[in-house]
Amino acid sequence: MISKDMAKQIEGSSAIRAMFEEGAEMIARYGKENVYDFSLGNPNVPAPAAINEAVKEVVDSEDPLVLHGYMLNAGYEDVRQTIADHVNKLHGTAFKPNNIVMTVGAAGGINVFLRTIIDPGDQVIAFAPYFGEYNGYTSNVKAELVVVPPDTDTFQPNIEEMNSLITPKTKAVIINTPNNPTGVVYSAETLKKLASALEAKQKEFGTDIYIIADEPYRELVYDGVEVPYVTKFYDNTIVGYSYSKSLSLPGERIGYLVIPDEAADSEKIIEAAGVATRILGFVNAPSLMQKAVAKCVDEEVDVAAYDKNRTALYEGLTEMGFECIKPQGAFYLFVKSPFEDEKKFCDLAKKYHIIVVPGSAFACPGYVRMAYCVSYETIVNSLPEFKKLMEEIKSMK
Amino acid sequence: MISKDMAKQIEGSSAIRAMFEEGAEMIARYGKENVYDFSLGNPNVPAPAAINEAVKEVVDSEDPLVLHGYMLNAGYEDVRQTIADHVNKLHGTAFKPNNIVMTVGAAGGINVFLRTIIDPGDQVIAFAPYFGEYNGYTSNVKAELVVVPPDTDTFQPNIEEMNSLITPKTKAVIINTPNNPTGVVYSAETLKKLASALEAKQKEFGTDIYIIADEPYRELVYDGVEVPYVTKFYDNTIVGYSYSKSLSLPGERIGYLVIPDEAADSEKIIEAAGVATRILGFVNAPSLMQKAVAKCVDEEVDVAAYDKNRTALYEGLTEMGFECIKPQGAFYLFVKSPFEDEKKFCDLAKKYHIIVVPGSAFACPGYVRMAYCVSYETIVNSLPEFKKLMEEIKSMK
Repeated sequence: MISKDMAKQIEGSSAIRAMFEEGAEMIARYGKENVYDFSLGNPNVPAPAAINEAVKEVVDSEDPLVLHGYMLNAGYEDVRQTIADHVNKLHGTAFKPNNIVMTVGAAGGINVFLRTIIDPGDQVIAFAPYFGEYNGYTSNVKAELVVVPPDTDTFQPNIEEMNSLITPKTKAVIINTPNNPTGVVYSAETLKKLASALEAKQKEFGTDIYIIADEPYRELVYDGVEVPYVTKFYDNTIVGYSYSKSLSLPGERIGYLVIPDEAADSEKIIEAAGVATRILGFVNAPSLMQKAVAKCVDEEVDVAAYDKNRTALYEGLTEMGFECIKPQGAFYLFVKSPFEDEKKFCDLAKKYHIIVVPGSAFACPGYVRMAYCVSYETIVNSLPEFKKLMEEIKSMK
Repeated sequence: MISKDMAKQIEGSSAIRAMFEEGAEMIARYGKENVYDFSLGNPNVPAPAAINEAVKEVVDSEDPLVLHGYMLNAGYEDVRQTIADHVNKLHGTAFKPNNIVMTVGAAGGINVFLRTIIDPGDQVIAFAPYFGEYNGYTSNVKAELVVVPPDTDTFQPNIEEMNSLITPKTKAVIINTPNNPTGVVYSAETLKKLASALEAKQKEFGTDIYIIADEPYRELVYDGVEVPYVTKFYDNTIVGYSYSKSLSLPGERIGYLVIPDEAADSEKIIEAAGVATRILGFVNAPSLMQKAVAKCVDEEVDVAAYDKNRTALYEGLTEMGFECIKPQGAFYLFVKSPFEDEKKFCDLAKKYHIIVVPGSAFACPGYVRMAYCVSYETIVNSLPEFKKLMEEIKSMK
């Protein structure tokens, strides 16, 4: 009795979960210290202590009717003011509270925006490899997800290929930088090329094409790399931000949309977002957590811990002969599978108690994703096992 | 550039909001004490103090990686165990944690369940008058909302009319008891009749038809009335519960679905609900608040305060000649409009600074909804104004 589309979603979403479940079974059988589970992007660096302090402060100081009550669907005005100020300070933008809509994570925000602009049959473009959940988000609104094939040399978006896929039905292009699963950061040059390509297509078709900038990993970057702010390159940009990774609060479901005045029909979209958040059942972002993050906009998680993991795993694996682009952000390594069929690699890795996710879950077969948001010990202890795995692979060739 | 359907949703959802905005304008002009705003169902009784204590306790005692992290999409196992035990104790049921899926309020839960079972073009039945948001929830999944006309004598569901509207495409019937906007509680007798009618239709068409029991007002009842637990009457019942009203936490977005083992395909539905909650962007119910409500399942808000309002408003209005069924639950009065066109009544009421919502927003024209979750003073001070209003109406006839 479940719907046809939901049956398809369950089928399609099984890859990461299947790996996670196999990992859980292995842990039960062999013990946590003997399993190297790189399947899930669940932060292992705790939220800054300031978050819990902020939580306690707001419950002690705010009127419970306000703190736990309904507010405007877009969120508390003072919270949106604080966030607008913070974004403006960091990026030299000029957003007002009105441009900020608090959401149930970035996932909630993207769903709200898609609900706002998509009619069934409209098209949304994503660049492979992409976060597999976009399949679900677009299926929710009966949009067609059009996939641009990967550029596996750089994992930057393939803009020429994108151009050939845009039609009058293209309503949005989702980008995700720093990227899950590659860790790549889109450069200013890339964003300029993307913007001018989209501007030309908007002109050609007389349409508006929005960039949805999915940015949960914005704050997780290494080697001093800069993540350009997309609204500065292209007017029709909607930003989906989340505190899931930047403050290690994935379970709290707190994030926001930025809907700039420069975006086409921004006033109508802001109004519609308020209705969409309500009818989708979110209604508003969790109220206590809105107030808590507003007190913590200057806080950071311990990015150095992720960096240490990144370096150890990247250097360890490449020394053994694995091929991988060096990630500049997020907490994933996207490693070329030594076999053409990466599922064969995933299966063989399990023999060494190593759990990785096949790239086909990200529309990029031939690769595997490793989430290095694990303990440093897990990384160090996994390396000898990876070495044995590589030796077995070499002996097979 | 907003979608065609969203334009329709904005149009349709404007009635309550329009009244609320007019109320806000009036308050700005005349002062809060001179405006009688009965437009919104926002609790005015604060959350029990135990909630804030529980919040502080969990942030002080739980590992932040667990407390703020991802868990199973369905929610923390211990929280679901606590809630299952609590429901079983109250209602003599036998639910296990597996039957409970934590959700972002009841609205989130209903959206998750609809996403799970609905294919475009399927039908969902609601009994007028019904909570207008059901229009949005069903439009999200491209279902057709089929409305059973009201029985304005009793405001109990019109089961004969429902029977004539069920087709092989009917996937669900939404009921809401205690009811928004009437305050009516469905009796055990009514539920028995409803269940046997649906069982007959299931047999006739060889389909499964789920009851969605939308129960945010379950705990707000008066005069010792009992609210029968729907799963005990009909196997294919899914309950959507929320702490928004029972603990005055509407902004926190915390509730749950009950998916009983007895429901058809319950295992698949439970699995699909976990996927639906993820792809809709909720991912999981806010984690800190899951833990906090689990510590407060035995807490209650001050229902006596609502009861005092109910009695004062109901008695005051009926003495003046207004016609209204006496509500047994929730915090709404559904009053017959002295004019056939209830919008005319809403407009005239504004002259006396009284804000009420037209019944057409609930698919029941000729009536108005008054939300009495306001201060007792507002009720008392509004009565002389209602009296003047009634006198003007009488003089017009």
